[in-house]
Amino acid sequence: MINAIIVTNPGFEMLKVSLIIGAGILALVYAIFLSKIIMKESPGEKEMVDISKAIQEGAMAFLKREYLYLDITLFIIALFIIFFLDWTKALVFIFGALVAALTAWIGMSVSTRANSRCANLASKSFSRAFRVGFLSGAVISLTIVGVGILGIIFIWLITKNVEFLIFYAFGSSLVALFLRVGGGIYTKSADVGGDLVGKVEAGIPEDDPRNPAVIADAVGDNVGDVAGMGSDLFESYVSAVIAAMFLGMFISFDYGFLPLLLAAAGIICSIIGIFLVKIKEGENESFEIQTQKIRTAMNRGIIVANFLMIIFSFFIIHFFIGNLEVFFAVLAGVLAGVIIGWATVYFTSDKYPPVLSIAKSSESGSSTVIIEGLAQGLMSVVIPVIAIIAVIIIAYHYVGLFGIAIAGLGVLGVLGINLACGCYGPIVDNAAGIAQMRGMNKLVRSRCDALDAVGNSTAAMGRGFAAGSAVLVALAWFASYYEVAKIDVINIGDPKVIAGLFIGGLIVFLFSALIIKAVSRGAYYVVNEVRRQWKEIPGLMEGKARAEYVKCIDITTKESLKQMVAPGLLSVVVPVLVGIILGKEALGAVLVSSLVVGLLMALFMSNAGGAWDNAKKYIESGYFGGKGSLAHKAAVIGDTVGDPLKDASGPSLNILIKILGIVSLIIAPFL
Amino acid sequence: MINAIIVTNPGFEMLKVSLIIGAGILALVYAIFLSKIIMKESPGEKEMVDISKAIQEGAMAFLKREYLYLDITLFIIALFIIFFLDWTKALVFIFGALVAALTAWIGMSVSTRANSRCANLASKSFSRAFRVGFLSGAVISLTIVGVGILGIIFIWLITKNVEFLIFYAFGSSLVALFLRVGGGIYTKSADVGGDLVGKVEAGIPEDDPRNPAVIADAVGDNVGDVAGMGSDLFESYVSAVIAAMFLGMFISFDYGFLPLLLAAAGIICSIIGIFLVKIKEGENESFEIQTQKIRTAMNRGIIVANFLMIIFSFFIIHFFIGNLEVFFAVLAGVLAGVIIGWATVYFTSDKYPPVLSIAKSSESGSSTVIIEGLAQGLMSVVIPVIAIIAVIIIAYHYVGLFGIAIAGLGVLGVLGINLACGCYGPIVDNAAGIAQMRGMNKLVRSRCDALDAVGNSTAAMGRGFAAGSAVLVALAWFASYYEVAKIDVINIGDPKVIAGLFIGGLIVFLFSALIIKAVSRGAYYVVNEVRRQWKEIPGLMEGKARAEYVKCIDITTKESLKQMVAPGLLSVVVPVLVGIILGKEALGAVLVSSLVVGLLMALFMSNAGGAWDNAKKYIESGYFGGKGSLAHKAAVIGDTVGDPLKDASGPSLNILIKILGIVSLIIAPFL
Repeated sequence: MINAIIVTNPGFEMLKVSLIIGAGILALVYAIFLSKIIMKESPGEKEMVDISKAIQEGAMAFLKREYLYLDITLFIIALFIIFFLDWTKALVFIFGALVAALTAWIGMSVSTRANSRCANLASKSFSRAFRVGFLSGAVISLTIVGVGILGIIFIWLITKNVEFLIFYAFGSSLVALFLRVGGGIYTKSADVGGDLVGKVEAGIPEDDPRNPAVIADAVGDNVGDVAGMGSDLFESYVSAVIAAMFLGMFISFDYGFLPLLLAAAGIICSIIGIFLVKIKEGENESFEIQTQKIRTAMNRGIIVANFLMIIFSFFIIHFFIGNLEVFFAVLAGVLAGVIIGWATVYFTSDKYPPVLSIAKSSESGSSTVIIEGLAQGLMSVVIPVIAIIAVIIIAYHYVGLFGIAIAGLGVLGVLGINLACGCYGPIVDNAAGIAQMRGMNKLVRSRCDALDAVGNSTAAMGRGFAAGSAVLVALAWFASYYEVAKIDVINIGDPKVIAGLFIGGLIVFLFSALIIKAVSRGAYYVVNEVRRQWKEIPGLMEGKARAEYVKCIDITTKESLKQMVAPGLLSVVVPVLVGIILGKEALGAVLVSSLVVGLLMALFMSNAGGAWDNAKKYIESGYFGGKGSLAHKAAVIGDTVGDPLKDASGPSLNILIKILGIVSLIIAPFL
Repeated sequence: MINAIIVTNPGFEMLKVSLIIGAGILALVYAIFLSKIIMKESPGEKEMVDISKAIQEGAMAFLKREYLYLDITLFIIALFIIFFLDWTKALVFIFGALVAALTAWIGMSVSTRANSRCANLASKSFSRAFRVGFLSGAVISLTIVGVGILGIIFIWLITKNVEFLIFYAFGSSLVALFLRVGGGIYTKSADVGGDLVGKVEAGIPEDDPRNPAVIADAVGDNVGDVAGMGSDLFESYVSAVIAAMFLGMFISFDYGFLPLLLAAAGIICSIIGIFLVKIKEGENESFEIQTQKIRTAMNRGIIVANFLMIIFSFFIIHFFIGNLEVFFAVLAGVLAGVIIGWATVYFTSDKYPPVLSIAKSSESGSSTVIIEGLAQGLMSVVIPVIAIIAVIIIAYHYVGLFGIAIAGLGVLGVLGINLACGCYGPIVDNAAGIAQMRGMNKLVRSRCDALDAVGNSTAAMGRGFAAGSAVLVALAWFASYYEVAKIDVINIGDPKVIAGLFIGGLIVFLFSALIIKAVSRGAYYVVNEVRRQWKEIPGLMEGKARAEYVKCIDITTKESLKQMVAPGLLSVVVPVLVGIILGKEALGAVLVSSLVVGLLMALFMSNAGGAWDNAKKYIESGYFGGKGSLAHKAAVIGDTVGDPLKDASGPSLNILIKILGIVSLIIAPFL
């Protein structure tokens, strides 16, 4: 453990603050610059703009209603904070929520405008279409890191107290809860419900405009994958920085400030990496070559960004701290992030045995597809969890609890580029959908499919990455809780602690069950509404009348908000109850157990879902009988089962474990 | 905590020993008496006897080969024990294994002889058919408790040292590993493989004699549910007694002896309960009335047995210990057992919302069936886990760690009757299968179906019960480990302990994945063998030639043994490695984490599987379109997915967590 306190001088501090603010502003300026490039592209012919507009309006309608309820919740919690603590903390909390809500809003605006542009460009140039898709993702991710870091430094400069920053993170947690959990329920209700009533019941194809749920489904892609994943990682990002600052301040001021500097460096590295993600236009390229080119370009950007991050961290730590042991913690984090990413790709990409064996098992029917997917999903947790264990042991060995927090920052440092790749997925997915809906020509659709195929992998990687970073953030909150609650020891030999370990695992299972049930229920309402419209709107089924798309969006939004209440309350009420009834040690056990079980279940559900998805895509590309074969039908069932797991319950667990941590930290002084 | 040491006199001790031996002998005498009653019944016409014989021979062939490899493993481990400890412990270890292997052998002999008698009696009298099915289960369960307790007292009288008893339990663990894990893989390989190639590929009905895997499948029912569940609960039973004795001896000799007395009382209560399970013959009863009558009769027996157990425990504790606080621990255990049983019934019986909602969701296809089943399975863990938490807190509050062990005995005390109900399931399942294969008349088949329907519920209850008791046994091993390894504290704030918690959860996931994969692989070999026979044996498909049933049994046995190696090694090697590399505290964390995650996953998988099974049965009884409808097809897929979960991977976790515990305890002095 390090205890040396380094005295700082004001000039030195100014330099640091300027570096941090500079990096934040650079991210935003670059984001604005990129968005200008994107907006210059034509959104395409009128019909395409219409679809894009409908998705845009739906997405905004969703956000508006979410934010209404978010505001009410915000207000109630703020009252609690004022009553038990003080009004400044409540203000910071509200500020944190508003900032997070704003970035989600910006993200949705970008992604819903980029989709038609991407589809339109696909008719002209594959490389430019890719570029627009990827840069849109970059705009979203740069906004998140830029706004995130500027918000932190802003609060810091005003309060000069890390305790306030915790409320900034808490604000972002609340938004993540609404968008990731509520958004996850929304997107899968619309998706599953629309498919059930459209594909299964009426026998019309996917993305058919006669299906009133079709726009709700497209809205869902943005809601779940852009706003949901974005707010989740926004929370992880600011939490990782703040938790590391919090734990660092226990050592010295310089240690407390280091996380911000590393985050600033990460922004620069990400921007350089983003700059390198380009592909050359080719002629008559096959599907394989196209996807390979995109993969290579993205890998290039990610590898360079990570490599630079390692070098930058080394010099920053050497220069500002002078203790290279801290560097090893960061290094461990960076490497763990890379390993988790690769492991996710291995288990969810059709280039490797797991997905291929699921595809093969589809030949003997849907039950073997499900069984094989479950087995692969369970297996897929091994490498990422070992990576996390290694990080914990290495980081702690060198710098104690602070090391674990700073390792989390190693994982999240180059979020700028990682999230750009993650958000690229839903944008090109939407583009491919629009191309399909508009019946564009085969060349355009095959190009969009190539974009989409890679997008699927990057979305899967994003999920693995989100789960891995969430668990490190939750661990950092646990460490902070441990300090603040002044805990001597949490002894597993104590039955209350064992009870806590059981409760932690139990919440994860209950929470997952509630989310999956919520999707079923939401889908049920969508089915009923679609049936009603087909019955009551004359000429709809014949394609003569327009469906009431907004109605479907409205119902799904309402239902997803209602279904969010139980899991949301669970994540706030359980820590309070356990803390009061079983004591602070038991609550600590709940935190650790929930993050252990939460990571296992999140990876299991996300990877099983991702693998089923890509096994289906693999068959659709012509193997085992291709589209329409019995194998394909079996694989579609696997994909449908995986949908709520990978896009609703799995990622929601990230939010659960982080909220449990931050709520416990906030109530710690009272225990 | 209690520290008073009560001085005992030799006469008093003789009385106790006589009581214990008396109860054990009574169980065996009653079992012999009952088996005479059963054997007096006619096994039916020649064709039926032939089928029953084929199942018998197959089951014995399976056991023989299992025991061959078991002997080799036994020998190797015994050498280790001799090398590191001493030869007497090795001898006790071998004795424990032999005793456990013998009870499994007896159980299989009974169940494979009872099936045709039960089917044959169904043509004459419903009540007598039920009685034979139930009494056969009782013979098996009474043999287990009788032999179990006699073995313990035998070793005790020779060695007068509880440490030796741990090796007796270890021996039974090894048998449980072979029969529950190997048996689970076997039964589901044969079941899934046979269905895939028969029902799906060739389109012939289930239990069709032209399918060479049909006898292997019937053998599997006995192997998995009788030998597997029996050896699992034999292990739990002797482990619960021994762990409680071990922890009790730390307090005083009288405390150390109490568990044996309670077990003896439990045997008497079970016998009385078994005696009460009778139904009156009725005329023209509907399916509902028949199943209701059986349920009422079984509930009567179970409730009376539990009630008597509470009263007996009260007096035993009052008389021999004089500290009624111990009684509360037993009471908590008894009640928890009842609650876990009820919760399992609620989630897996078609009388309650969970199964009904799965059945309803089958109307919209197999994907919704799977999703709904997963959600219900996740949800089903809540009540049992809360019951376990309550037991831990209450038992510890009154009597410390010993309390937790003695509470485990509260759950397992009336194993005699609980396991009788559990083993009743596979016997009547076989009987129904034989009635089907022989094409017996409608009345007989409907009677067998009624017997089987209840058997399904009791099998599900048995699984919940096995999981709940396994976790209490594993906790008791953990407590013993804690004492023997002389651990001061296992602090969750220590990163090695956190690593241990991750590893514990990780093993559970990896172990489950290996078992599920093993079933897939085993099924694959069965499919190939069946295809080969159809191709190479002329006239087989036309029903003119006899299939080589033994070949299928042989291949499945070999494959299940091979596939057992990896999970088996995992459960022995991981504690040793963690203990050496990360230390004894981290190993303690692994134990607790694995039992927490193991319980959650075991309940999830068992209950989801049980619920799918009964949802299918419910539809087959005529709802949602009945047999052959689209809803039925969807429900069949749910059932097939659930099969390996509920009969292979789920129950195998019981073995995993118990073996981890006992291996850790044995290596504890070296850490």
